Amino acid sequence: MEKKKVVVGIDIGGTNTVFGFVDREGHILTEDKIKTNYYDEVEVYIAALYEKIMVAQTKIGFDVEIIGFGIGAPMGNINKGTIEYPADLPWKGIIPLADIFKRHTSLPVIVTNDANAAAVGEMIYGGARGMKNFVVITLGTGLGSGFVIDGKLVYGHDGFAGEIGHTAIRPGESNRDCGCGRKGCLETYVSATGIKRSLLKIMADSIQPSNLRKYSFEELDAEMIHDAAKEGDAIAIRAFEHTGRMLGFKLADVVAHTNPEAIFLFGGLALAKDLIFEPTKRYMEQNLLNIYRGKVKLLESELSTQNAAVLGASSLVWSIKEQK
Amino acid sequence: MEKKKVVVGIDIGGTNTVFGFVDREGHILTEDKIKTNYYDEVEVYIAALYEKIMVAQTKIGFDVEIIGFGIGAPMGNINKGTIEYPADLPWKGIIPLADIFKRHTSLPVIVTNDANAAAVGEMIYGGARGMKNFVVITLGTGLGSGFVIDGKLVYGHDGFAGEIGHTAIRPGESNRDCGCGRKGCLETYVSATGIKRSLLKIMADSIQPSNLRKYSFEELDAEMIHDAAKEGDAIAIRAFEHTGRMLGFKLADVVAHTNPEAIFLFGGLALAKDLIFEPTKRYMEQNLLNIYRGKVKLLESELSTQNAAVLGASSLVWSIKEQK
Repeated sequence: MEKKKVVVGIDIGGTNTVFGFVDREGHILTEDKIKTNYYDEVEVYIAALYEKIMVAQTKIGFDVEIIGFGIGAPMGNINKGTIEYPADLPWKGIIPLADIFKRHTSLPVIVTNDANAAAVGEMIYGGARGMKNFVVITLGTGLGSGFVIDGKLVYGHDGFAGEIGHTAIRPGESNRDCGCGRKGCLETYVSATGIKRSLLKIMADSIQPSNLRKYSFEELDAEMIHDAAKEGDAIAIRAFEHTGRMLGFKLADVVAHTNPEAIFLFGGLALAKDLIFEPTKRYMEQNLLNIYRGKVKLLESELSTQNAAVLGASSLVWSIKEQK
Repeated sequence: MEKKKVVVGIDIGGTNTVFGFVDREGHILTEDKIKTNYYDEVEVYIAALYEKIMVAQTKIGFDVEIIGFGIGAPMGNINKGTIEYPADLPWKGIIPLADIFKRHTSLPVIVTNDANAAAVGEMIYGGARGMKNFVVITLGTGLGSGFVIDGKLVYGHDGFAGEIGHTAIRPGESNRDCGCGRKGCLETYVSATGIKRSLLKIMADSIQPSNLRKYSFEELDAEMIHDAAKEGDAIAIRAFEHTGRMLGFKLADVVAHTNPEAIFLFGGLALAKDLIFEPTKRYMEQNLLNIYRGKVKLLESELSTQNAAVLGASSLVWSIKEQK
């Protein structure tokens, strides 16, 4: 009997690394994860990850054949197979991720930006099926983005297109430090961490009561702010409003640059639905030139938060295999 | 004898409309212009323009055969052949430019953004030959831009990609009115008019002497500011510095979105060379994430200011003819 071909899709996040065995139809046969931030050394991390993948394969049996590994990672560079200066990972500088991974396998290993991977996933399995021009914004620990123009993912000259998270909110004078070493980047406002920072700032400035005042910065997370806002907590609602204001403002730039049919929001913060979509849409429209107004759809990703990046990473391998 | 085939390339600017008869090799056989802002009605304007083109043809003789008309115009939409809500032209609303033009001819008429036309011109005849990913910024009465990704001009879903001139400098609180009806757009800072506005602002705030203090806003133009800056006029130099600061800041967004190999500056302000390139480059680099730093070339357009848009507009017709 012929073995079922699968690609291992791997999504490297700041906290967890999730992987799944994905077949040609986009079914995930099995999925598991390891802690990213547990490993100070990338070689040890890759060895542990590969080991865990091999264990997963023994569990689903050997009638499955792995044909390649697709890796989505922050600052992943598809041209070079590297991760370069990731702001949210434990390793610094330029990391030759594909080369390190290839010490364990002779199969194809493709590295790309995790947000680019999510965009390909949206195009192949999700709400962007049939669309030629769209953008996916991933809202996790940081903020990533993937641009699809004319049906193709945009890599740019050096492989780093689609880093909207590290565009600045205003010229100079911003006081929010970013993990990338600069100040005022969009992801310092629009991300799970960004909304916590906004919440603290609003808490400091206002005298409104809030249940969230009893929690420390470290105890707080985006989900707690989401829950509080749903229950009418004024400060939590203002934190979402501010997050949407900043996101909408910069999405207007994305529209002016590339005029997409739709922008998809993906990840934890997007689960807050209207709390984030309504202010984002309002401020985006406010900042749009009239020719674009009311035309660009702001949509929820149709991929489940947990699977999209894994599917996206895997789809890259299928698409490259089939182009050959 | 077979007639020489030419395309009429037409560049509609806020002040002048320039047209040229362009052969397949990019030679301009003859060139002429009419005043754009002289005509309150677009039908009368088009009739006058077409008349002038016919007169030009009689002058160069009838061994030339026109095979089409390529028009570059602010807010030109290639999908619909329209100009939509142009900020710098005498006509308002949605103007069916191609349809009006076709009352005079049965030949193909293609309308696009003047900055997109300049980008195609740069790719076919200029400094972007052989480049796959680049951006052209046109600095005239306003600020236009054309994006080329993977060797193709980006139109986007509705045909309006590449309008960096109407992205805002900061969220809210800007006090510079834009012709588009909004506030704080990049072109209110970075354009022939923008630098005049910055100069007046600096003049108002500072007590530094300047020869330019004797001129009214209406008397001043970008060339006078350029000349004064070359002679060391402190206020004129500060106006260029401010212009470069704003342009560099927003070019960093362009880089983060599309990661081009090069950005070309084209048009009047670009002739100021180091006065505009040095601060623009400095502020762009300052606003770039480390992965992009020192990698994106900021170049002067290699097309002459007068011809680029005409060549670009004409090249669209050749390229569409040859794709058929």
